[in-house]
Amino acid sequence: MATRKYEGKKFEKGLATKIADALTIEEALQININSKPFTVTMRTPGNDMSLVRGLLHTEGIIKNQNYLPELKLKKDNNDGIVTVVELSIPKEELGEGYSNSRSLLSVSSCGICGRTELGDMSFKGKTIDNDDKINISLLNSLFEKMNTMQSDFHQSGGTHAAAVFSINGKLLCSMEDIGRHNAVDKVIGKLILLKTLDNATILTVSGRVSYEIIIKCFKAKIPFLAAVSAPSSLAVDFAKELGITLFAFCRDGRATCYSNPHRTK
Amino acid sequence: MATRKYEGKKFEKGLATKIADALTIEEALQININSKPFTVTMRTPGNDMSLVRGLLHTEGIIKNQNYLPELKLKKDNNDGIVTVVELSIPKEELGEGYSNSRSLLSVSSCGICGRTELGDMSFKGKTIDNDDKINISLLNSLFEKMNTMQSDFHQSGGTHAAAVFSINGKLLCSMEDIGRHNAVDKVIGKLILLKTLDNATILTVSGRVSYEIIIKCFKAKIPFLAAVSAPSSLAVDFAKELGITLFAFCRDGRATCYSNPHRTK
Repeated sequence: MATRKYEGKKFEKGLATKIADALTIEEALQININSKPFTVTMRTPGNDMSLVRGLLHTEGIIKNQNYLPELKLKKDNNDGIVTVVELSIPKEELGEGYSNSRSLLSVSSCGICGRTELGDMSFKGKTIDNDDKINISLLNSLFEKMNTMQSDFHQSGGTHAAAVFSINGKLLCSMEDIGRHNAVDKVIGKLILLKTLDNATILTVSGRVSYEIIIKCFKAKIPFLAAVSAPSSLAVDFAKELGITLFAFCRDGRATCYSNPHRTK
Repeated sequence: MATRKYEGKKFEKGLATKIADALTIEEALQININSKPFTVTMRTPGNDMSLVRGLLHTEGIIKNQNYLPELKLKKDNNDGIVTVVELSIPKEELGEGYSNSRSLLSVSSCGICGRTELGDMSFKGKTIDNDDKINISLLNSLFEKMNTMQSDFHQSGGTHAAAVFSINGKLLCSMEDIGRHNAVDKVIGKLILLKTLDNATILTVSGRVSYEIIIKCFKAKIPFLAAVSAPSSLAVDFAKELGITLFAFCRDGRATCYSNPHRTK
């Protein structure tokens, strides 16, 4: 099962209906090599053996394509969203991709992948405390405003966009980047530099919403997040927990709210 | 400038025309903190100050949102695609996101982001040596075949797909995942497990093509890569250099070849 059903409130032509949507499951796969944490990747469960086998090869972690390391999969009991894979690989089979990484310090800008352990859950239990209510009829106009700012996308079709608005729909900042997470970091960074991050109430993104975007939105204390495309399961789970009102599939006059719908009017 | 012009050969209705497309620029930003490599992120140049400022905050690398570290940007002379940013941050201002990462080993599954230095260019100068020629009229049918396998996407709209074919268009493997790079690793890993990776000649992906996908394709020695959406500048640069025939915007009976078009017929 790579999808899971989630309840949503679908807004269309002034009407709200309860729906159940199948969302893509997003969970963490932590890879340990010779009993040491090596990396964490967010992925859709299923075919984990193939994923690990491919990653070992395409990242040059093993030297010989035909070497098949011993591999154990287990679910981490402390946290239901983490599967741990334990690999035993003799030193002589380890490739450049392993040794290059051994002395590295790392935080990845995509939030979680590249980290060696999913330990930084210190934000759990904290929530965004905000009493604003968003006017649903406003949502479409936010994406229209962001769209007019997407000059790179109109040329290349190859960029993601992120924008930040006040609760009344005033555009505060809009940015584009090849990386979705970078576009979000750029708008948040710009508002920090302008000392106006406190006015940021709604974050819009052009693509899908995965876990990492929710965390960035939370760190910036932005209570509303709206996306053009689909959310992941984990995005909805964390949006609920962290007090973010999440809208997805915001297109053609429609929008579906997956978390904290009490902040809508 | 966030886009750059690239020459392409556009195939449509049996005709080939030379075109010049604006592609999104993808380059590396290496972040050093207190003279030590900290992370590398692939991004579109422009607003780098905002990007760094946002990332420091959303990843919890600094404690205090209002603290503005000293920041120097410089282009790495050894490699035109790397910009280095040097940050001086006093110990007492560094947050959990920094200390959590300090003892970490890391290779990110998204290929490059999360690495601390763009040093692994050992594949430069090597190319895929392959004399196959692809029949352009075949391209569309590959995406049709991949599409029929996208059961998760048809349910959720939230997954990427990757598939591998023989030169005659026989489907060898198809996979879906929330992460584009994971879908590619899964198909390659599956074929390694089946000991049939040598038959893999064409890789198709459902979304865009960035640098990381080109590297994975190269590591698996697959000479043809075809994508539904846009390529990045760096994807085209590396596809040319590594001997990959890259097609993008493969939709509605069209396709544009950006590198090594001598392998088309």
